Amino acid sequence: MNYDMALDTALNRLHDEGRYRTFIDIERRRGSYPNAIWHKPDGTEQEITVWCGNDYLGMGQNPKVLAAMHEALESTGAGSGGTRNISGTTIYHKMLEAELADLHGKEAALVFGSAYIANDATLSTLPALFPGLVIVSDSMNHASMIQGIRRAGCEKHIFKHNDMDDLRRILQSIEKGRPVLIAFESVYSMDGDIGPLSEICDLAEEFGALTYIDEVHAVGMYGPRGGGVSERDGIAHRIDIINGTLAKAYGVMGGYIAASAKMCDAVRSYASGFIFTTSMAPAIAAGAVASVRHLKEDGSLREAQQTNARILKMRLRAAGLPFVDHGTHIVPVFVGNPVHCKLVSDMLLERFSIYAQPINYPTVPRGTERLRFTPSPVHSSAQIDALVQAMEALWAHCALNRAEESA
Amino acid sequence: MNYDMALDTALNRLHDEGRYRTFIDIERRRGSYPNAIWHKPDGTEQEITVWCGNDYLGMGQNPKVLAAMHEALESTGAGSGGTRNISGTTIYHKMLEAELADLHGKEAALVFGSAYIANDATLSTLPALFPGLVIVSDSMNHASMIQGIRRAGCEKHIFKHNDMDDLRRILQSIEKGRPVLIAFESVYSMDGDIGPLSEICDLAEEFGALTYIDEVHAVGMYGPRGGGVSERDGIAHRIDIINGTLAKAYGVMGGYIAASAKMCDAVRSYASGFIFTTSMAPAIAAGAVASVRHLKEDGSLREAQQTNARILKMRLRAAGLPFVDHGTHIVPVFVGNPVHCKLVSDMLLERFSIYAQPINYPTVPRGTERLRFTPSPVHSSAQIDALVQAMEALWAHCALNRAEESA
Ligand SMILES: Cc1ncc(COP(=O)(O)O)c(C=O)c1O
Ligand SMILES: Cc1ncc(COP(=O)(O)O)c(C=O)c1O
Repeated sequence: MNYDMALDTALNRLHDEGRYRTFIDIERRRGSYPNAIWHKPDGTEQEITVWCGNDYLGMGQNPKVLAAMHEALESTGAGSGGTRNISGTTIYHKMLEAELADLHGKEAALVFGSAYIANDATLSTLPALFPGLVIVSDSMNHASMIQGIRRAGCEKHIFKHNDMDDLRRILQSIEKGRPVLIAFESVYSMDGDIGPLSEICDLAEEFGALTYIDEVHAVGMYGPRGGGVSERDGIAHRIDIINGTLAKAYGVMGGYIAASAKMCDAVRSYASGFIFTTSMAPAIAAGAVASVRHLKEDGSLREAQQTNARILKMRLRAAGLPFVDHGTHIVPVFVGNPVHCKLVSDMLLERFSIYAQPINYPTVPRGTERLRFTPSPVHSSAQIDALVQAMEALWAHCALNRAEESA
Repeated sequence: MNYDMALDTALNRLHDEGRYRTFIDIERRRGSYPNAIWHKPDGTEQEITVWCGNDYLGMGQNPKVLAAMHEALESTGAGSGGTRNISGTTIYHKMLEAELADLHGKEAALVFGSAYIANDATLSTLPALFPGLVIVSDSMNHASMIQGIRRAGCEKHIFKHNDMDDLRRILQSIEKGRPVLIAFESVYSMDGDIGPLSEICDLAEEFGALTYIDEVHAVGMYGPRGGGVSERDGIAHRIDIINGTLAKAYGVMGGYIAASAKMCDAVRSYASGFIFTTSMAPAIAAGAVASVRHLKEDGSLREAQQTNARILKMRLRAAGLPFVDHGTHIVPVFVGNPVHCKLVSDMLLERFSIYAQPINYPTVPRGTERLRFTPSPVHSSAQIDALVQAMEALWAHCALNRAEESA
């Protein structure tokens, strides 16, 4: 058995399809984000503007967040030193969970190392709590939910993305009396569209199903206190389990679920991915607490962000560039081919000092390769101008399509 | 369908078996660890000594580690703001991976949010790289490896813990020419015994198998530079993939694999648990770099730790308490019943201000419930005395067994 050759084969497959990923080394400088330094492979440096980050509101450099992290480091040290059960539950973890439960108007919350693990660990554990569970999942759900559902090993059905007729059809086909969970997202990260939350809740009620939402790209961003689209639409109480991240709008790291006290207690007690791993570093929890609190009280960053997103889209539309507008903060411009997508991205970076990573399969379906811009309140109008001008120049240069995709 | 009742059933099962877990809220104070403050459920506080932490060397309060974290926070901010591929690869991640590759004498390393995810994501991805892979796994492997192997979905065989005859028998039974991976640990976390690494490598060589080791409880602790038992025994070069954590001896958070450049590149490119999640916060990476570097150069904490472990075991032996001694830093004292185990733990905490969480199923097999003490260089001899005296008093009080288990 030639293991090396097998690795070559696996890697060549990616090169051949033009979707081998090269990570760009960047160095963010606190206070100057979205500007950053690109450390090039040849050892030189170039100042760039990050246009594809998920620190949507620039909270990663918020003074309150940093002060809370410094303070926690000073008072308690670096790591937690244990799993949640074995010496790793600190007052910082408790504070964060209380803050998140409050954010979503739930009795409890449970913090994980990331929203990926929160999805994976929770979804895979639910069949142990609800024997005979059937999971009904939106076709565009994130990889972490797909992994969790696959691992759950229970009966599952996929409904067409946001298609309520298809969801109803599937719910009708499930034997009455069986436990059912509907899993979906609010803001879908790569298209920026939003799920029909209240219709899903209606169907869940009608069929007696539990609801599970991934609000990873919405927490901090939508709703008067940043509770996500479920808060904005006033339906958080109709959702059984809300999943969110602390690593995007909140600018730190970590993930969680918020739910009833019993649900959290049961997941806490049964989920391998929660039990058998060191708990989050206290300083991370402290930073997240400060960030969640700040965005609960202050909506100005959310508003500035929506304004900048609108400006960018207006400018892209005027330039005739092919993007979709679902009214959210995520602005995908389609290229539709992995090789071209990487080329445009490389040229943006090298010639215009604009960093937008090419988004290829498996992150998005083949044929929908794109650049995904994430305007934030910290992008200036000069930076928006520079981006649109660069895109216009490149689109002309590469003779790429200009038709706007219909939403 | 009554979901609430299902949750009650699931939770009552744990209460009935006496293995419902109550997390103890503790507050570590930098500089005074292993002392900490216990925040009791009634709102009062009690000063305690932590005896079950996995910050084995007290690196969580090492000034160099904290300085590096403060510095990174100041210069770069809180979170990385993206997945590794999409704006989340920073110079801190690169530095950490270079440091870890060097630690194990490998070409490359790959950092994950935790060693749990590193195990889960890597093991579950290997069959995609080596079609037809058979995984042969030690029966006492950690939950994270079990999860990864289960998710891998490939043919698997379990060999009796550390039993080379059984391993040989299984390897012989596998069709020639198929790719095979042997997965095992160095220091097993709950018993503190060590796998026969070089014999496993011999068998791997004989049968043309890959080797995968979890050195989570050994990195930083064994070997002249803290490279684990594989470094101590001079066989790191014979192991294909080394898994370790940054959250135990290194006192911070995070996990990794170290392997050939090609292997890391392939896992990086194919593992869902690596690709679809925000990368580690830069300050965490910076702290880990400082910790790994410190323990590479300075072996004094390792020595002090071994000395304290020997003293504790000598004293427990003199007191006739039932523990096993495998020559490592982990000291399990057996109770053998979940209810008694929790009782002894509660009494240690309340009456003697000594914190050692009861270790019950599913962390250890039923019937082997235990207290697991982790002496560290920061435990004073007065604290060792206090622990042994408390245990003697409780053992007498509870009329528990005194026979030492044979290793
Ligand atoms: C043997 C073993 N492997 C892996 C892990 C997971 O490490 P981490 O805490 O970094 O997730 C643990 C415990 O936490 C462990 O005991
Ligand atoms: C929809 C969705 N859910 C979950 C995650 C995982 O979140 P985290 O980065 O906290 O692991 C992501 C992306 O990272 C995501 O896009």
